[in-house]
Amino acid sequence: MKEIRIGILGFGTVGAGVVEGIQKNGALMADRTGIMPIVARIADLDIETDRGITVPDGVLTTDAMSVIADENVDLIVELVGGTTVARTFTLEALKQGKPVITANKALLADHGEEIYKTARENNIGIYYEAAVGGGIPILRSQRAGLIGNQIESIYGILNGTCNYMLTRMEREGLPFDEILADAQALGYAETPPDLDIDGIDTAHKAVVLASMAYGAPVPMDACPTSGIRGLSASEIVNAADLGYCIKLLAIIKDNDGEVELSVEPALVPKEHMIASVSDSFNAVFVKGDIVGDTMYYGRGAGRLPTGSAVIGDIMEAASDKLHDVGTPVSVTMMLQKDALTYCSGDNIIKRCYIRLCLEDKPGSMAQVMTIFGKHNISIASVVQKERHESGSAPVVILTQAAKESDFVAAMTEIQALDVSTSEPIRMRLEDFE
Amino acid sequence: MKEIRIGILGFGTVGAGVVEGIQKNGALMADRTGIMPIVARIADLDIETDRGITVPDGVLTTDAMSVIADENVDLIVELVGGTTVARTFTLEALKQGKPVITANKALLADHGEEIYKTARENNIGIYYEAAVGGGIPILRSQRAGLIGNQIESIYGILNGTCNYMLTRMEREGLPFDEILADAQALGYAETPPDLDIDGIDTAHKAVVLASMAYGAPVPMDACPTSGIRGLSASEIVNAADLGYCIKLLAIIKDNDGEVELSVEPALVPKEHMIASVSDSFNAVFVKGDIVGDTMYYGRGAGRLPTGSAVIGDIMEAASDKLHDVGTPVSVTMMLQKDALTYCSGDNIIKRCYIRLCLEDKPGSMAQVMTIFGKHNISIASVVQKERHESGSAPVVILTQAAKESDFVAAMTEIQALDVSTSEPIRMRLEDFE
Repeated sequence: MKEIRIGILGFGTVGAGVVEGIQKNGALMADRTGIMPIVARIADLDIETDRGITVPDGVLTTDAMSVIADENVDLIVELVGGTTVARTFTLEALKQGKPVITANKALLADHGEEIYKTARENNIGIYYEAAVGGGIPILRSQRAGLIGNQIESIYGILNGTCNYMLTRMEREGLPFDEILADAQALGYAETPPDLDIDGIDTAHKAVVLASMAYGAPVPMDACPTSGIRGLSASEIVNAADLGYCIKLLAIIKDNDGEVELSVEPALVPKEHMIASVSDSFNAVFVKGDIVGDTMYYGRGAGRLPTGSAVIGDIMEAASDKLHDVGTPVSVTMMLQKDALTYCSGDNIIKRCYIRLCLEDKPGSMAQVMTIFGKHNISIASVVQKERHESGSAPVVILTQAAKESDFVAAMTEIQALDVSTSEPIRMRLEDFE
Repeated sequence: MKEIRIGILGFGTVGAGVVEGIQKNGALMADRTGIMPIVARIADLDIETDRGITVPDGVLTTDAMSVIADENVDLIVELVGGTTVARTFTLEALKQGKPVITANKALLADHGEEIYKTARENNIGIYYEAAVGGGIPILRSQRAGLIGNQIESIYGILNGTCNYMLTRMEREGLPFDEILADAQALGYAETPPDLDIDGIDTAHKAVVLASMAYGAPVPMDACPTSGIRGLSASEIVNAADLGYCIKLLAIIKDNDGEVELSVEPALVPKEHMIASVSDSFNAVFVKGDIVGDTMYYGRGAGRLPTGSAVIGDIMEAASDKLHDVGTPVSVTMMLQKDALTYCSGDNIIKRCYIRLCLEDKPGSMAQVMTIFGKHNISIASVVQKERHESGSAPVVILTQAAKESDFVAAMTEIQALDVSTSEPIRMRLEDFE
């Protein structure tokens, strides 16, 4: 039986989950793979708090660098979080020729290029399944099972907090702020909640998926990001009336060699499988040119699901190290090209949901429709609701597919109309066609 | 750039899909992995038919053994189908130290143990992602991403033909025979359709999944199998009225160390994601003790989706060969134990849907309910329909969870009742709890 000796940096929620998983199933993993995983060292600034896990004397230390340098440690699991010391530790481990496993999406989003290149220079691996989709083996599917495919599109529900909130808003009809406060009280949302509800966490994951799909590190500023903050219960109701629900999506597409990339709330048809992904679950749809549509679903966060993904990477890194694989596919796939080109408003084609408030007087709608027509935007359906007490009437419009740049121009003109009584709402409508 | 030279045995539908995929995306795969896949030789008894694919002179041959023995062939892709020459070719290639990739579920179901052991003896790999779930990377997810998990349960929709037929029966309300004839005319079902509609194809895949989950080759006779042949449109309607749809499921569970395994049509709640898997798509739900619920979805058959899975295996086998990995996890996981123990009727606990036809006279229902009570079967709901012209009334019963052995005993007694006017129907009701 071969052994692999693991050094874990960060003994927080996920770190404890990893140790628990290895203690519970380490012998099973050894039976399955021929490699016994052994937690040799664990570093954390706090080694006093009881995590409910017993480790042998000498395993715990406050000195992360000593774990990296330890000759008895074969690979490093980085779970300290953040992008400062995590970066330092990761680069140091790679330079010492030790594979690194990380769950740190922010680290990869902000410093991925430097990290992948350092891994390649040192002919060693970095493994990061847990950074995207928690326990779902989505990156492994992309870089192994689907390795023969050009990726046509990826749609991801990648933030469990947002999906939990949207599910509850839809089911209970309650306003955003109330659900958020409740989610925070229940521990489903962080305080402050910005990373989740502003879509930043989803964007961190989206750039990792896009980098792997198209072969170069994708900077965060290539991913226009809007979250669900302040989403009105009216939009949820309007969408439901039209047969849609609203999901916060990461959208990644190949548009004739240019990458379309965004994180945004979008209407999706209720009968599509992605609409069935509820509560804090995550799911990723991947369409390959050979395999067609595929989907991967599971828990996107949490101590044990994330631990499961980290453990999967540990066993792969162990096998790679024992067989001198050198730079693995999880590195080479990210560095096929220097950079990607990204779509601009002129070559992003999409459908939209638009909600306007128009003064309830003759000609209001005509002015709006004239503007849409001028900008080549065809209308698929219009529902004008009863007018508010204010004297203005909400109008809900679903468009046909049109250019993003045309939408932007049209919305600017519509907003400037005298008959437009409040700021229009516009969201993508994604019918996956 | 490293190269891997591939010998393909069988140039039928999937073989042509594999060659097409490599011709289209081989350079991309090389960029991603550092290994260039080259189709060196293709053997088929028929090398005259135009498959719409051009290959260089000298690649095609009718002599499969010469491809296996060719020094310029690094690995063998077995796509001849069946379990006779496919077995011979597979064993021969493994004995010559060449990794084998196969899509042949029947071969693994019938001769898996011999094949895995031959691979282990020769310290080489057999790779078979395409044998289960077509293009879905389900086995790779199980043996890599979820390697740290004890598998608690697997539910699979693994036969696209059956799922297509069930979807159409549900949508269109048409009888089984009419849908089958149509599916055959459209090429969705084979003639004869037995392997699909009798559940045998699903069982072939179920035993592979169960073998990997629990670590020993599972013989086909350990998998009680019933298909959808002759399923009545009444059952579909009754299920729908109660909030369920009917799916042909492979069911694999760990019941305290014993394996519960079956292939059977089952009622599943409409709101569960598995109910959203429609048409010819496949899906596999896997619950791990660490990761929780996960699901994998995609095309379960077809030239290109299956080709995608074969290509994924080719690239993995190539990497393993180039790095002298020896016996890979796809082999070691199947041979952890000599044999498994399986549940019998006493320790299979499930809910059931039961449809009876009872004479419409006082006391009929009482007799039935007395029998259920005697066998410890609690009733969750009963719907008695208007009586037929025949004078008997259909009764639809959903039970609570009870022992399979109790169901068998109760149904035998009920069928023998004078008031029971036709053979009762019984199906599993699976609420995934």
